Amino acid sequence: MSARTPTAAIVIIGNEILSGKTQDTNGPYLIGELKALGVDLREIAVVPDIHETIAETVTRLAAKVDFVFTSGGVGPTHDDITIEAVARAFGRRIVREPSLEKALRWFYQDHLTDAHLRMADVPEGAELVYDDGIKIPTLRLENVYVLPGIPELCRMKFATVRERFRALPFHLRQIFVDADEGLIADAMTRAQAAHPSVAIGSYPRLSNAEYRVKVTLESKDKGEVDVVCDELVRAFGAEKIVRVE
Amino acid sequence: MSARTPTAAIVIIGNEILSGKTQDTNGPYLIGELKALGVDLREIAVVPDIHETIAETVTRLAAKVDFVFTSGGVGPTHDDITIEAVARAFGRRIVREPSLEKALRWFYQDHLTDAHLRMADVPEGAELVYDDGIKIPTLRLENVYVLPGIPELCRMKFATVRERFRALPFHLRQIFVDADEGLIADAMTRAQAAHPSVAIGSYPRLSNAEYRVKVTLESKDKGEVDVVCDELVRAFGAEKIVRVE
Repeated sequence: MSARTPTAAIVIIGNEILSGKTQDTNGPYLIGELKALGVDLREIAVVPDIHETIAETVTRLAAKVDFVFTSGGVGPTHDDITIEAVARAFGRRIVREPSLEKALRWFYQDHLTDAHLRMADVPEGAELVYDDGIKIPTLRLENVYVLPGIPELCRMKFATVRERFRALPFHLRQIFVDADEGLIADAMTRAQAAHPSVAIGSYPRLSNAEYRVKVTLESKDKGEVDVVCDELVRAFGAEKIVRVE
Repeated sequence: MSARTPTAAIVIIGNEILSGKTQDTNGPYLIGELKALGVDLREIAVVPDIHETIAETVTRLAAKVDFVFTSGGVGPTHDDITIEAVARAFGRRIVREPSLEKALRWFYQDHLTDAHLRMADVPEGAELVYDDGIKIPTLRLENVYVLPGIPELCRMKFATVRERFRALPFHLRQIFVDADEGLIADAMTRAQAAHPSVAIGSYPRLSNAEYRVKVTLESKDKGEVDVVCDELVRAFGAEKIVRVE
């Protein structure tokens, strides 16, 4: 388990997401998994099936965070270009992996096409992560993990590598306030300046009968979160507090 | 109405999205609106409340597409930094807009704070789009439209500028196929090469009783979409076709 907080980015690949033909569910899934693992997600990029765009995005994000997860564009058809783009992002050649070719030949038998065999092509130097739960291994190149777009497969493959990313958990507290956000802004600005390690968020709601602003406090340091929570509750004033979680 | 296809990008701003505290709904909303308007959405970036990251992202995308829409980070608190970041992306100063200051003073009366007045700060040279439906105008700087994160307000503000982006509609056809994707891949590769103006997508489904692959054809040229649809139906073979829409 890592003591420092690992950082991550997600690249969602596919024209079908940007054109609204399919609503992405892998992004929300990975957001939840990374949060539960204690990983700090820094950015999500949703990009089309364009070789240069995918390669540029992977290059940019792989240099910026500890781990990048791509979703989509893995398969036998003309719009499945993630593997080539990830290889290009690291200046690698594509090679046909014998163990994958063998598995594909066994699985498809007489129906095997050249298109199927494209699924045995991997960037040179990629790691193939095998696990009892999956037939096709999960592919890693440098700090980039390549996940499929089909939600069931994305979840199965992420499960094979999940424990690699586990770090100390985040601690969250929430203050629900019945006041205009502008009236509690100064107190939050002061608290944020005094406690930079605690992320303070302020989220107003329209037409919510119970509260008008949800204030969130989050950090890996539970003690510090509790200190800031007490400070803010006092600063806001008891009459404005609906509840504290 | 524009004859060429305008391009767009979306920047979703907020720690609460990346940390999973809030699920973004403005992205899916804008995807649907832009598609209906005939706008080609090229990228979505989800970024945290970090000044440099927002400014860099806006700079990068504003240079790449016709229109950028930001969502979130507009308000009176310390984590509302979108306006400053968009100003910085274009090297503009922040100025206090008298008409907004007046409106805020009228609205908040005796409760007005300095934090409220931050909502009157705009980048120099920004356009303020007024409309009967909204109290606070929608802000545009160059090709960037700044929308709020609160879903109801995001929708209200987008409505004030929507007709600026209307272009020729997209035409979509879909072929539902009962065959392994690898067996129809070559036909799609050939059709895509012969008709580059039609976007051909191939989307396999697991455990779907009705079909195994959905093939989508999309273009602004309805005639061309129909031609490619007929070609692919013939190439796949009638026995593999479940239905065509």
